[in-house]
Amino acid sequence: MSRSLPTSLSVADLIARFGGVLRGAQTEVPILRLASLASARAGDLSFLSGARHRPQAASTRATAVIVSKDLADALPAAVAAVIVDDPYAHFARIARWYDTQTRSQVTPGIDPAARVSDLAEIGANVSIGAFATIEAGASIAQGSVIGAHCHVGRDVRIGAACVLHPRVTILDDCALGARCVVHSGTVIGSDGFGFANDNGRWEKIPQLGSVLIGDDVEIGANCSIDRGALDDTLIGDGCKLDNLIQIAHNVRIGEHTAIAGCVGIAGSAVIGRRCMIGGGAGILGHLEICDDVVVSAMSLVTRSIGKPGFYSGVFPLMPNAGWERAAATLRQLPVLRDRIRALERAQASTDQEQFKSKE
Amino acid sequence: MSRSLPTSLSVADLIARFGGVLRGAQTEVPILRLASLASARAGDLSFLSGARHRPQAASTRATAVIVSKDLADALPAAVAAVIVDDPYAHFARIARWYDTQTRSQVTPGIDPAARVSDLAEIGANVSIGAFATIEAGASIAQGSVIGAHCHVGRDVRIGAACVLHPRVTILDDCALGARCVVHSGTVIGSDGFGFANDNGRWEKIPQLGSVLIGDDVEIGANCSIDRGALDDTLIGDGCKLDNLIQIAHNVRIGEHTAIAGCVGIAGSAVIGRRCMIGGGAGILGHLEICDDVVVSAMSLVTRSIGKPGFYSGVFPLMPNAGWERAAATLRQLPVLRDRIRALERAQASTDQEQFKSKE
Amino acid sequence: MSRSLPTSLSVADLIARFGGVLRGAQTEVPILRLASLASARAGDLSFLSGARHRPQAASTRATAVIVSKDLADALPAAVAAVIVDDPYAHFARIARWYDTQTRSQVTPGIDPAARVSDLAEIGANVSIGAFATIEAGASIAQGSVIGAHCHVGRDVRIGAACVLHPRVTILDDCALGARCVVHSGTVIGSDGFGFANDNGRWEKIPQLGSVLIGDDVEIGANCSIDRGALDDTLIGDGCKLDNLIQIAHNVRIGEHTAIAGCVGIAGSAVIGRRCMIGGGAGILGHLEICDDVVVSAMSLVTRSIGKPGFYSGVFPLMPNAGWERAAATLRQLPVLRDRIRALERAQASTDQEQFKSKE
Repeated sequence: MSRSLPTSLSVADLIARFGGVLRGAQTEVPILRLASLASARAGDLSFLSGARHRPQAASTRATAVIVSKDLADALPAAVAAVIVDDPYAHFARIARWYDTQTRSQVTPGIDPAARVSDLAEIGANVSIGAFATIEAGASIAQGSVIGAHCHVGRDVRIGAACVLHPRVTILDDCALGARCVVHSGTVIGSDGFGFANDNGRWEKIPQLGSVLIGDDVEIGANCSIDRGALDDTLIGDGCKLDNLIQIAHNVRIGEHTAIAGCVGIAGSAVIGRRCMIGGGAGILGHLEICDDVVVSAMSLVTRSIGKPGFYSGVFPLMPNAGWERAAATLRQLPVLRDRIRALERAQASTDQEQFKSKE
Repeated sequence: MSRSLPTSLSVADLIARFGGVLRGAQTEVPILRLASLASARAGDLSFLSGARHRPQAASTRATAVIVSKDLADALPAAVAAVIVDDPYAHFARIARWYDTQTRSQVTPGIDPAARVSDLAEIGANVSIGAFATIEAGASIAQGSVIGAHCHVGRDVRIGAACVLHPRVTILDDCALGARCVVHSGTVIGSDGFGFANDNGRWEKIPQLGSVLIGDDVEIGANCSIDRGALDDTLIGDGCKLDNLIQIAHNVRIGEHTAIAGCVGIAGSAVIGRRCMIGGGAGILGHLEICDDVVVSAMSLVTRSIGKPGFYSGVFPLMPNAGWERAAATLRQLPVLRDRIRALERAQASTDQEQFKSKE
Repeated sequence: MSRSLPTSLSVADLIARFGGVLRGAQTEVPILRLASLASARAGDLSFLSGARHRPQAASTRATAVIVSKDLADALPAAVAAVIVDDPYAHFARIARWYDTQTRSQVTPGIDPAARVSDLAEIGANVSIGAFATIEAGASIAQGSVIGAHCHVGRDVRIGAACVLHPRVTILDDCALGARCVVHSGTVIGSDGFGFANDNGRWEKIPQLGSVLIGDDVEIGANCSIDRGALDDTLIGDGCKLDNLIQIAHNVRIGEHTAIAGCVGIAGSAVIGRRCMIGGGAGILGHLEICDDVVVSAMSLVTRSIGKPGFYSGVFPLMPNAGWERAAATLRQLPVLRDRIRALERAQASTDQEQFKSKE
């Protein structure tokens, strides 16, 4: 459930601030919270986008609902219906404002229990939480928030207005652009997985590159993004990464690409701009994916993709007994193909025989 | 290897406390530790459940073994055999007692190096470890243990007798019921992955919900459980989650469902009660799984499941050369199906011809 | 981009120290950094190994390049070509030295903001970072580095010359050998996922074992390695684990096995020596994999493997429309097999008819 606004907002205020046209006369009903149609109670503002939500709309207890003209009839008469062109986008705009009103405010300043090197450069209005460690040579630009328990290594550069949630680790030499958000537990700049096999033993290849992250990048919780071996690992402007994602050394990701949770990307893979990688997908190393590629959840990309499009490769789910039969037959698939060929040859000779016998 | 008891327990003590009948006369042999049959040494108590463990039983060096009547003959005569009805359940009961005797004891109290807000509410006998941060409005009920390096955000509510292992992060507004256990590295309440695409750029949708977790829930290490977008992410009483699990925003999980490691569950998925989700499985968003569903390891659930049962979908493992052939044929599968149809049509016409020619 | 050396090295120095033969006379050009052929600038040393990198070699701006005799002609005449037998191994040797010269130096000593128990045993030249917690009974052998925010639990033993990067958690009773490296966010010794189902509710089985890790093991970021239920979880000498890996209770991994990112290994699995497990692969519990097995990325091992070799099982990636057709046909695969059999029987009887009709 979302937090309540410090002081309520009337529907008339809401329209004055964000636009829309009221159906009916409930201008003075007060709005305190945002909620979904199904869970809304008195005091809540909700939204209706899409005819498939008509049933929830019909029974909603929301005080006010943002809605398009053609769906307004789906709402009970008691609801203050605010009619707009694009209800979802309109509601998202309200939600961003609401978030700034209800989120805990961060006070700029360095917590006395933080450990900040004298050789670090801290910009104006930066906030640094308890038990954070900021090492020599690090620079944090103005307005950024470094949560409790964060670690910012040597010579790390963090742009303006970034938010590192509590317990983020950014290791030596890595850099973030402006307005980045990194969620708790994420590690940026761990060593790439580089070992050379020497007679059955693995010898470590030092990982000398770093990680460079563009502007407006958001990275979820408990991700790991490795530093490059020689060159740097690169994440372009506007990329959005979900939770528990693995980015190996020297990976390069183009601008505005979105990656869902649990994805693993192997070393030196290059991913284009505006791609969307589904949850749990894997991308092998040393390959290239062009711009505007969509990969389905849990699919494995084993070769370069040179053509924009939607790619999939995942075994369909079945009741287990059916799966066992399908899996067993799958092993025989090349043999079945050969048996089809044999039948085709036999059929061809039968046809010939019949043709002959008719002669 | 398990720790030794502070003072040894004789087999007679063991029977007096937990029940069972001794075969033979070794009542005074001392028990110090618990161990498996294969690794047990003098002083160890083990158990035998199932005939397939007869070989390990025959050569065990355990001092005493919990065993059912019909398998007691599998043990060397020198072993003190304690005969019970259900050896595994009996041993588990002993193990729980043993654990309380050997585990490091936690002293209630707030470590002087913890940072606890004056506006937090700390119950009786709560223990808070070094460098933990507890923010304003948080409440921690009696008997709970908050490990070192934990972060408990604003207005978080933690029920009685919970254990947060070292380095757990629970972000603003989330709530745990009573007797929950959360393992190290887990993040509860990170932002859901909510972005709207605006002409190729992603605009953040604020995540205003929270995470509500029931009673008796255990969550493994390095998981991430996102807060809801508007409504809350919900995890029911008695759920057990393994390590490295991703739970997206607005997911709802029914009571007593167990989820193995590395599972990813996408936004707004609803999972029933008493389900079991195998390791590495994926569940897409906006679908519903009914009660009592079992999903195989590494299977992807792409549609709602309305019938209890066991579901699978994973490519069978093969020697690589066989897999390459099977994978190549798989791509031709629709063509092979068409070729079978063509053969069937040809066969039908051959049969007709032959029928005619016999006329 | 790699860091610069504190003082530059001439090509002549480089050859004096590491060997090789200079083509031409550029003995005095100074080397400051290491870089790949494509990103190298003046002052950089690079390497060329393999004819497929000829195009990058031809346009490189590196000052010097390590190269084999037969590929030296691929380099511009202005480049100082240092000719050696095995360029990659030679460069790796230089990189290891370079790393020691440019990496931030760690000063031995205990940070005043660390919390170290009086009952812990700290060896000579150990370094312990800010906000680290070292509990009673723990021992850390000489020369090891414990990063900021690390937690070393009760009775944990850490061998000589180990490096725990910032924010590693090692829980009670676990042990690491000598020269281990553990990256940030990793948890060693969390409870195994052990619950017994008691009439639809899960009862916890205490996890009494620990985790024992050999010498020269490296473990990536945000992994979780569970303690054993009774016996210990074992990771052999020289194993290398990438990021976000899940190792369940009682798993045993043989020496020098390498495991790529996002792999999940279920309880009591036994993995041989010198195996290589591809990224995102899964290994079910209670099975055995012999030495020298290679498993492809994202494959699931469902049975024991008794023969060394390369094993795969992953659905091939396709354009989505093709995948939908292939997946639909896959469900009908057992039926298609039966239809082939029916055709074969019909064909056999047609042949017989034709044979008869020729009689």
